[in-house]
Amino acid sequence: MRKNKRRREMTNEELTALLNDMSLEEKVNQMSQVVGGFFDDDTVITGPMAEMGFTEENIALSGSVIGSMGAETVKKIQKAYMEKHPHHIPLLFMLDIINGYKTVFPIPLGQGATFEPELSEKCAAVAAKEASVSGLHVTFAPMTDLVRDARWGRVMESTGEDPYLNSRFCESMVHGFQGEDLSEEYRIGACVKHFAGYGAPTAGRDYNTVELSEHTFQEFYLPSYKAGIDAKAALVMTSFNTLNGVPTTGSKKLMRDILRDELGFDGVLISDWAAIEEMIYHGYCVDKEEAAIRAAKAGVDIDMMTGIYSNNLCRLVKEGKISEDLVDECCMRILELKNKLGLFEHPYKDADEEKEKQVILCEEHRRLAREAARKSFVLLKNEENILPLNKNEKTAYIGPYVNSRNLMGSWSIIGEAKDVKTIEEMLKQEDLAEHAVFAQGSPMLGADVVLEGFTEGAQTSSSTPEEEVQMLEEAVKAAAGAKKVVLCIGEDRLQSGEATSNANIQIPEIQQKLLDRVAEVNENIIVVLFSGRPLDIRAIKAKAKAILEVWMPGTEGAGAIADVLYGAYNPTGKLPMSFPYCVGQVPVHYNEYATGRPHVEGKDKDRFRSKYLDIPNKPLYPFGYGLSYTTFAVSEVSLDKNSMKDGESIQAAVTVKNTGTCAGTETVQLYLHDVAASVVRPVKELKDFRKVTLQPGEETSVEFTITEPQLRFLSENHIFESEAGVFEVFIGTDSTTANKAKFTLEKQ
Amino acid sequence: MRKNKRRREMTNEELTALLNDMSLEEKVNQMSQVVGGFFDDDTVITGPMAEMGFTEENIALSGSVIGSMGAETVKKIQKAYMEKHPHHIPLLFMLDIINGYKTVFPIPLGQGATFEPELSEKCAAVAAKEASVSGLHVTFAPMTDLVRDARWGRVMESTGEDPYLNSRFCESMVHGFQGEDLSEEYRIGACVKHFAGYGAPTAGRDYNTVELSEHTFQEFYLPSYKAGIDAKAALVMTSFNTLNGVPTTGSKKLMRDILRDELGFDGVLISDWAAIEEMIYHGYCVDKEEAAIRAAKAGVDIDMMTGIYSNNLCRLVKEGKISEDLVDECCMRILELKNKLGLFEHPYKDADEEKEKQVILCEEHRRLAREAARKSFVLLKNEENILPLNKNEKTAYIGPYVNSRNLMGSWSIIGEAKDVKTIEEMLKQEDLAEHAVFAQGSPMLGADVVLEGFTEGAQTSSSTPEEEVQMLEEAVKAAAGAKKVVLCIGEDRLQSGEATSNANIQIPEIQQKLLDRVAEVNENIIVVLFSGRPLDIRAIKAKAKAILEVWMPGTEGAGAIADVLYGAYNPTGKLPMSFPYCVGQVPVHYNEYATGRPHVEGKDKDRFRSKYLDIPNKPLYPFGYGLSYTTFAVSEVSLDKNSMKDGESIQAAVTVKNTGTCAGTETVQLYLHDVAASVVRPVKELKDFRKVTLQPGEETSVEFTITEPQLRFLSENHIFESEAGVFEVFIGTDSTTANKAKFTLEKQ
Repeated sequence: MRKNKRRREMTNEELTALLNDMSLEEKVNQMSQVVGGFFDDDTVITGPMAEMGFTEENIALSGSVIGSMGAETVKKIQKAYMEKHPHHIPLLFMLDIINGYKTVFPIPLGQGATFEPELSEKCAAVAAKEASVSGLHVTFAPMTDLVRDARWGRVMESTGEDPYLNSRFCESMVHGFQGEDLSEEYRIGACVKHFAGYGAPTAGRDYNTVELSEHTFQEFYLPSYKAGIDAKAALVMTSFNTLNGVPTTGSKKLMRDILRDELGFDGVLISDWAAIEEMIYHGYCVDKEEAAIRAAKAGVDIDMMTGIYSNNLCRLVKEGKISEDLVDECCMRILELKNKLGLFEHPYKDADEEKEKQVILCEEHRRLAREAARKSFVLLKNEENILPLNKNEKTAYIGPYVNSRNLMGSWSIIGEAKDVKTIEEMLKQEDLAEHAVFAQGSPMLGADVVLEGFTEGAQTSSSTPEEEVQMLEEAVKAAAGAKKVVLCIGEDRLQSGEATSNANIQIPEIQQKLLDRVAEVNENIIVVLFSGRPLDIRAIKAKAKAILEVWMPGTEGAGAIADVLYGAYNPTGKLPMSFPYCVGQVPVHYNEYATGRPHVEGKDKDRFRSKYLDIPNKPLYPFGYGLSYTTFAVSEVSLDKNSMKDGESIQAAVTVKNTGTCAGTETVQLYLHDVAASVVRPVKELKDFRKVTLQPGEETSVEFTITEPQLRFLSENHIFESEAGVFEVFIGTDSTTANKAKFTLEKQ
Repeated sequence: MRKNKRRREMTNEELTALLNDMSLEEKVNQMSQVVGGFFDDDTVITGPMAEMGFTEENIALSGSVIGSMGAETVKKIQKAYMEKHPHHIPLLFMLDIINGYKTVFPIPLGQGATFEPELSEKCAAVAAKEASVSGLHVTFAPMTDLVRDARWGRVMESTGEDPYLNSRFCESMVHGFQGEDLSEEYRIGACVKHFAGYGAPTAGRDYNTVELSEHTFQEFYLPSYKAGIDAKAALVMTSFNTLNGVPTTGSKKLMRDILRDELGFDGVLISDWAAIEEMIYHGYCVDKEEAAIRAAKAGVDIDMMTGIYSNNLCRLVKEGKISEDLVDECCMRILELKNKLGLFEHPYKDADEEKEKQVILCEEHRRLAREAARKSFVLLKNEENILPLNKNEKTAYIGPYVNSRNLMGSWSIIGEAKDVKTIEEMLKQEDLAEHAVFAQGSPMLGADVVLEGFTEGAQTSSSTPEEEVQMLEEAVKAAAGAKKVVLCIGEDRLQSGEATSNANIQIPEIQQKLLDRVAEVNENIIVVLFSGRPLDIRAIKAKAKAILEVWMPGTEGAGAIADVLYGAYNPTGKLPMSFPYCVGQVPVHYNEYATGRPHVEGKDKDRFRSKYLDIPNKPLYPFGYGLSYTTFAVSEVSLDKNSMKDGESIQAAVTVKNTGTCAGTETVQLYLHDVAASVVRPVKELKDFRKVTLQPGEETSVEFTITEPQLRFLSENHIFESEAGVFEVFIGTDSTTANKAKFTLEKQ
């Protein structure tokens, strides 16, 4: 039996021999990905399938499948397919497994808030295990697109605005999915996406134009993709957007020069869903033939869900419009991936109905989901130490999330609501509800909100106005009779995710009204805030004494919320993305470039500064920010020397002390600032962070090593290099820290 | 006597001889610009002046002055200066003369709305005349920065979002200021600004980082600067921003490769105010010495308002850190400008106290100001043909702009309120007020709005809450008793302009409340909207039957408003910049690039399109839009042939008919769309427009010639070229027109 052992059926020579023996049709169809439904016994190619241009012949030779899962199903498809295939080459089974398979972890943005990439590695490993026993070989994750605009709904699938943090999470997730060897048990291929720049759509509108200068692209956007590739991600996915005028899916510069040559990626490049065809709608290709040529020349190995490759490449090769070498190159990479996964030897890999029962949603997985959830929560405000709660106090739980099972976020396509406990159920189960009352207060969304085109799960209100009034009055009554109110409110899970851009980033109006009414009768309000994006929460901040951001927390979200609310777990999360003051402030991010007229908030009354007349420059809550139930003091930064040369390093240290009354964990953050350089530099850049857990009164030294490579940037010479000069070293507990020291980098 | 005649005192050889005879100190100080106050007899260099680093020696040799005007003052300074100067070289006197000198025209954004560049040429000529008799030689105009984000307050100084429209206005304004020969009477030098990209600050925050891809920069931002340079603008000004990582003021690539070599600019390049020093705050230069080197190497000829050049360049030349040739090159360009202006012969040029009295604010100038103002107004809505008004109807004029003289916008530094009539005064003067009542209704700004750092003119409320209540009630009473209400509301003039970025782009809240209260008692509301930027006017649109956007209309704004309200002039203005649906939609512009998942508003229920969940993609009012009191029908587009080759042209024609009941003028607009190209193309691009005036029932043919150069763009080959393929030709009355035909461009 194969277990944790590197084995490959075929040598490179054997793979080459196989390739050489394949017909052009076979090779081209390896490059085509179709939905599993096509393999159903009774499938007839009509309607939308016919429109995609697939024929039965294409499907019988297709190299991979998206969206089929379950050991029994997958094995059945694989078996039938291989028997018919001229070379008995196994199919690849792929699926979007984002924040978990059936055991659902917090959304990636919430995972970013843990500042604990090794935790996400564990989550990814669990997701891979559940997926692999269900017959899957590849996940379309991690998404590592850097994000700065909360209007974009897909920020929920990112780990935030910082290239360093994103890089650490990307590589951890890749390791978590893939382990050391893809052929190992319970491992699946990771796909770093979306290459590249997808997270910067103009005006926050999904799929919109992306424009990035070379230095911003290289320094902010590229690093985390690179981290995933360096971590040996098996696949990379193209993005839907144009980058500086060219659809990424057809960009030779991006896919050949940068991805393959600069970043050294030698795995499988797959298009995003129909992205090859969309080059026509971009106005980049006149027809499908040109789209096929552009994508193939860019080196896109797999065409996801269009018939463009399968219907055009053979003819194009025969007509001499593209070289067969190009097809061979792409096909070979696909065969190599199948070989790395061990599919030639074990075409079902880990697919196993018995293991599905043992592994999926097992206790160990649920425990990890609960740990990840509570670590993802960010305590934004806690006036008068209103949290943690005492279970003997009379507490009213109010809001549409009190009794909701929709805690898994918009990407939980496998996770099922039935496996999720609600907050009310969990509090009762864990014996915390004796003095609690519960009231929904309002539907999730008012009748005015219509989530067009969503086919399932949208919680658009079906309540009548009368029912809404009654709901509200019950909640107000509950609030009036309680000492404290826990208001569980936020975005509907379908208001974030793909294709959910919003121009307004407040909570639904009907929930804001609920808050306003409750605040009239009870001033001890704790808001548990559910969201897939940073929101404008000024109106919440004004009325709530505490705010706990819980994102979309996953299968075990309710238990994790109970852990934090009652102090069983002292919150540790830190924001991975700035919470803007309002939508008129976006895009906003801590690592902005210095301007020539910097504005010092509060101090500076000069008119002619880079600022707004009506709002501050600073976000409402900054990157890296998050409170604890205890407090920490950080000493001044001490450096072991005040200058360094190439090859040397500097030790930067602070003493961190728990100055509060309970044990807690602080995330100490190191930021650097290059004071002057040949291109403008960010005012601060996160370069390292460290979590320290301290008992009350306890203190510890936290040391960071600063080395020359950390000081490099894309200079005016268009290479990554450091430049002599002064650098500022900031160490603190969020990105606004002013706690700093300076050193000089000397050059020969 | 010199008049309308080309004469120059010095030949190139003589200028060279002069240069060669000048000391290094003299040459360097030609490159320094100071304020005129430095030349006051009793000036002692202390305080802020000393901080700038100027010495008395610097000032005595400075080459130019900013902010001194008036024939008497200028002549006095010039005389004293020249007498002391070793070579008796005259000073250049410069000032920001934006939308007029003392006769103030509509703000540039309003001028853009005229779609009549030849009118702006006349306005610029008048401004030049008034300025030149007041002793000025150069204006810091036109600003031709392309703008897409209404948060940026300085959109008021631009002519909008379209490169073609901006180009036409830029060249017209340059011609207007300069005429054929700078030495002519009443001509001043124009300064195209701000080079480059200043209009695209991140998040709409003034002075913030600008990032533009090469093709967006070249195709959208660069053309109008180029148009100004091709029109022989004497000067160009650097911008405050960094462009793709480098402060423009220190960018050799931008200032040498692009401005000088590609665009062929050989005039004087001046820094914006202290922009050389600000390269330090950008983190681009470690100190003033490096700033001097970077700016000089980039070829910045004049250092506006810092002592950096005057205090560093001599030493840097002596130390060999920069070449004296660089100083000679810059100094020579300054001498050449002085020579072109004829200053060596006539150092006072047109400065003349008597002419100041005759020319400034003369009837002819006021007439032009009134014409320009009424042509700038855009009728956004006119339900039930509520406009034009009948002077025999009882009409209530309500709002803080009813009796305001602040109609000139934030750049009217010479224009005086005393020379402006208010709407109330003008209606009375023109005998339109017999049945009119007037009420202020509210202060301009609520007490909550504080325009920090504004030292003069801010209309922040000084009313008490009680006074505000009384004001409001009087207005409501007036409204209740009238048949129609004309509500004159909008932004304060100091809410737009430089350093006035706003995250919220509605009218001041206190004025919205006024509208809401008035709407409770009278449904016949006409809003006359004052603004320096596109606003979110959904709340106005919901309650007003008519909306007339009047921008900041200038000295004769009130008369122009009377002309339009009572039908003496039928409105013709067209929006030069989209009015966003809300701030969450910005940046928004009609000429966006196609996406791969285009969304068809209203028709398309598919979730996975490029759109918002909560608002439409389209702006509330689009570019090119504006109503008339009559209506026009435009026929289908007819082309004289359906394909063309290089060197050929196509005639595109429509028939335009006045289908209403009064004479009117329509602006017929030609847009092109390249259906597929090697880089993505805008969905539409304005390429031409034509104004036609028609009597009721009259029709005319409007023809446009389409030639191959109009089809060029920055292709994947990084050159401007056209590509074979299909083009769509749209002709209509705004940028949303779907009236189109197609042709094919054939290539050999």
